[in-house]
Formats: sequence, structure tokens, C-alpha cells
Amino acid sequence: MSANDTSTPTEHGTPSSGSRIPDPIAPVLAPARRSTPAEEARTLVAGTPQGVLASLTADGDPWGSVVTYGALDDGSPVFLVSRMAEHTRNLEGDPRASLVAAEPPNDENPLDRGRVTLAGRVERPTGDALAAARAAHLRAMPSAELYADFDDFLFFVLRVERVRWVGGYGRMDSATAEDYAAARPDPVAPHAAGAVEHLNADHADSLLEIGRALAGFPDAVAVQAVRADRHGMDLAVETPRGTAWPRVGWPASIDEPGGLRAASVALVKQARAAQG
Amino acid sequence: MSANDTSTPTEHGTPSSGSRIPDPIAPVLAPARRSTPAEEARTLVAGTPQGVLASLTADGDPWGSVVTYGALDDGSPVFLVSRMAEHTRNLEGDPRASLVAAEPPNDENPLDRGRVTLAGRVERPTGDALAAARAAHLRAMPSAELYADFDDFLFFVLRVERVRWVGGYGRMDSATAEDYAAARPDPVAPHAAGAVEHLNADHADSLLEIGRALAGFPDAVAVQAVRADRHGMDLAVETPRGTAWPRVGWPASIDEPGGLRAASVALVKQARAAQG
Repeated sequence: MSANDTSTPTEHGTPSSGSRIPDPIAPVLAPARRSTPAEEARTLVAGTPQGVLASLTADGDPWGSVVTYGALDDGSPVFLVSRMAEHTRNLEGDPRASLVAAEPPNDENPLDRGRVTLAGRVERPTGDALAAARAAHLRAMPSAELYADFDDFLFFVLRVERVRWVGGYGRMDSATAEDYAAARPDPVAPHAAGAVEHLNADHADSLLEIGRALAGFPDAVAVQAVRADRHGMDLAVETPRGTAWPRVGWPASIDEPGGLRAASVALVKQARAAQG
Repeated sequence: MSANDTSTPTEHGTPSSGSRIPDPIAPVLAPARRSTPAEEARTLVAGTPQGVLASLTADGDPWGSVVTYGALDDGSPVFLVSRMAEHTRNLEGDPRASLVAAEPPNDENPLDRGRVTLAGRVERPTGDALAAARAAHLRAMPSAELYADFDDFLFFVLRVERVRWVGGYGRMDSATAEDYAAARPDPVAPHAAGAVEHLNADHADSLLEIGRALAGFPDAVAVQAVRADRHGMDLAVETPRGTAWPRVGWPASIDEPGGLRAASVALVKQARAAQG
């Protein structure tokens, strides 16, 4: 907790710039686990429609190019590429490849964004594997239906051997291929931003109850939701001692896309019971 | 002009879907050249704060990772990377690399966006070249000042040998390293969207004069600006015969960031003189 070890305000500041980040002063009743690097990687791959493929030219030079992709159930990316494109010739010549999937950059801090590199070898699927690859690609890129069956377009599946995830400054890790394959994309990722907005706009009182009763800040005067995911929610908790940034966990991790509402309601109930 | 050869409406449609795209019926008095692939590449590199670097692992595998960059006056990208990062070890082991700079994807049509691959070899600059590289990187990434002089951060300059530009569907070309180095980024690119908006909001009459007198459509009933660049402007020209998408050129290509206003005024004058 190095942030608590300094009494000088940092340049980056916080909404309570000039104060320490306050510690919880009550038990944290709803601790949350964070998504694993494998889960983060799967979520990024599921949530971005295009990435950059690194392949090898005939001379073994590294060649980067933009590709769209879908993903099989185990997270293996599926490319649909034209024989006219250089990357296609590269993949046919040498199957070694990596794919970078990245959140769009924000202007202020382009490096403080999630991205992942998946490295491995591509295969051209056949038979049932081709049908699965085709379906996976078209799920992500419905407009590819127009050319998916042209003779000069090829499907490739990237068999992932290495996974390197970077979540932003100071958040990075590798995942094994097995963990990557076994993990699932966060089902609530597409809905999280909207849910956060809704909570802040219409349920400030409930957030305050959660911050006071479950996050360890009974002296909270205002609480905002910052981010939500399948496992929990990051909060900004304003107290007379400064603003803290705790995380609270849902009573159970969410495994379906529509689960944020029920999880939020359950968390508020838990907060009320704890205050009880 | 294959678009004029068909009388069946395409699925993509146009605002005048169902009609042919009409031909000009008067001389085009303000023809425009398009940016060259080298110019498009320089503009993309100048306009995007981050890209994906493809480098080679110790095994010669292609490795993609997100990097920020600036560019020297000749367009050579300058990276500032941490020794802790895999790509840095890769570049130290093998200088071959490529950089992909891409416009952010749009959701409807992720592949219909500009991107460029620059391939070559990296060098670690020293002396004056290091000072120039440092300045170029910090111009693009001012926040890098915080760590630019740390011992474990290294500057690399990518000496560009190959340039492959893709502008979107059906627009792609290579540029020589010499043309790339000699070209300049479009100085008006950062202002073009705002200028287009302003022209459409406040100068519809002037656009109509331009479309009628200079673009070959004296029967125009409404004209919108679609896109602007240093060489000219793409228009949507509505006529009783359908909507056409001509391009008109400024009287002279623009070479400074603030040049769009004077160029627009000059074009309107030219239109009035031609009608007069």
C-alpha cells in the first residue's frame, strides 16, 4: 500500500489532491477478486473488432498489418484474409504469428490502456474446424459474409502458445496458453460502462450504503462507481479524510451478460443487512 | 469510371440510391490531385499517437506490441522503450522491425480505415541524432519527459525501408522509402474535420457555387463538403440526376496548418469568377 506511505501529494493527484489516500476504518465485508490476466486477455480479444497481426516475410522480417478477427470458444483468433495481401503470403510461408488486440488509445494517456499479445502458430482449418472458424469469424464480423466464401480468401486459426497482457501502467502479466483457453471473456464488459453511468445517475444512495457498509468507509460522504466487471466494482469514496479507491465484490461473480443488475441489487441488500 | 457503367442500384446505396451516379455536364475547372501514398503514410504517422511494433524474438518469432512514437523530420519513427519490455530486448537482439500506424476503427466498417506499415531496421541514436530523436519523441508524447532520461529507457529510430499504405477498401499502394522521407504530413489534417463541419453549417451557398461552377455540376441543388485535405475537398453534389461525389482542388495545395480558410475563400472567388 505504497500510496499510504507518503504524505506529499503526487503530481498525478486525486480528487482529494493534497490529502493521503485514506485507509478503510472498518472491516471490508465485500472483498473482490480481480480478473486474472487470462480473463483480461480473453475480454480484450472478445471486445475489439480488429488488431494488428505480426507475421514473417520470406526474409524472416517482422511484418505488421491490420486484421479483423473472431475467436473460437477457446479464444483462438480466427482471421479471414485475402491471398492478395502480404500477411496472407507470410502466413502461408511461415505459420509463426502474433496478434495484438488493444483498447483504443485515449489522448491523455495512450499507454494507460489494456492490450494483449497472443503469439503462436496459425493453421488453416479444414472440415468441422473450418465450419467452426467460419462461424466464429462471422459472429464477430457479420459483413465478412460477403467475401467469406471467395476462393481467394483464407481462414487461419491462431493456436495460442504465449499470452502477454498489459492492463495499463503497472498492471501486466503473462498467462499460460492453458489458462487463456480455459478463461472466459467477461460477459458484462459490453454493458459495464452503461451500468456504471446508471448507478451514478440514479442510485447514488445505494452506492453510499455500499461504500459505508461493505468497503470499509463508514465515514463516506459520497460514493461513485468507476468501473464494473464480472467480479466487482471499483469505487471512488469521498470521506473527510480524502478520497479512497476501494474495490467491492459482487456476492458471486457474474457469468451471464445481463447479470450486473441482479448483482448490484444483491450488493445493496448485503450493505443494508450489514448496517442492520 | 465503373460506377457509371451500371444502371442497377448497389446495396451500399448513396443518398440518391436507385439512380446512377451522374456525370459532370460542364468542364471541371478545379481538378484536384489526391495525396500520394507517401503523403498519406506521413499523415497517418503524424496523426496517431501510438501504433503496434512488430519485432523478432530470440527465436525469430514475430512479436507485436503497443508503442508510442514521435517522428523525425524525414518521418522516421522514434520509440522510447523500457529495457523491462520484451520488444526492447527484441530490438536489441535483432534490429529488423515494422510499425503499424492506424486510424481508430469505426464500428460499422473496421477495415475501411487508413493504416500504414513502415518496415526497416532500428538504430539507437547517439550524439546529435539522440537529441533530435528525444525532441521528436517528446513533441509527440510530452508526458514521456517523466522517464525519457531514465537509464532503463532507450530511444530507437526506425530507418524506414518499405512503406505499405492502405486507405480503406480499394485504396492501397506502396511508397518508396525516398518518397516517404521527402513527403510531408498533411498540415491541415488536424483541422480538416472542423473545417468541413463549419463549411456545411455556415457556407452552404458557397459550396453550392463551387459545385455548380467548378466541379462540373451546374445543375447542383445542394452541395456538402465531405472531406478536406491539403490538395482539395471531396463533395457530395445533389442534382436532379442523382448525387455525385466529385473532388475539387484548392487553387494551390496548402502547406501550412492554418491554410484551409484562405484556400476555401480563394475557391469561392474562383467559382464566382467562373460564373461571372
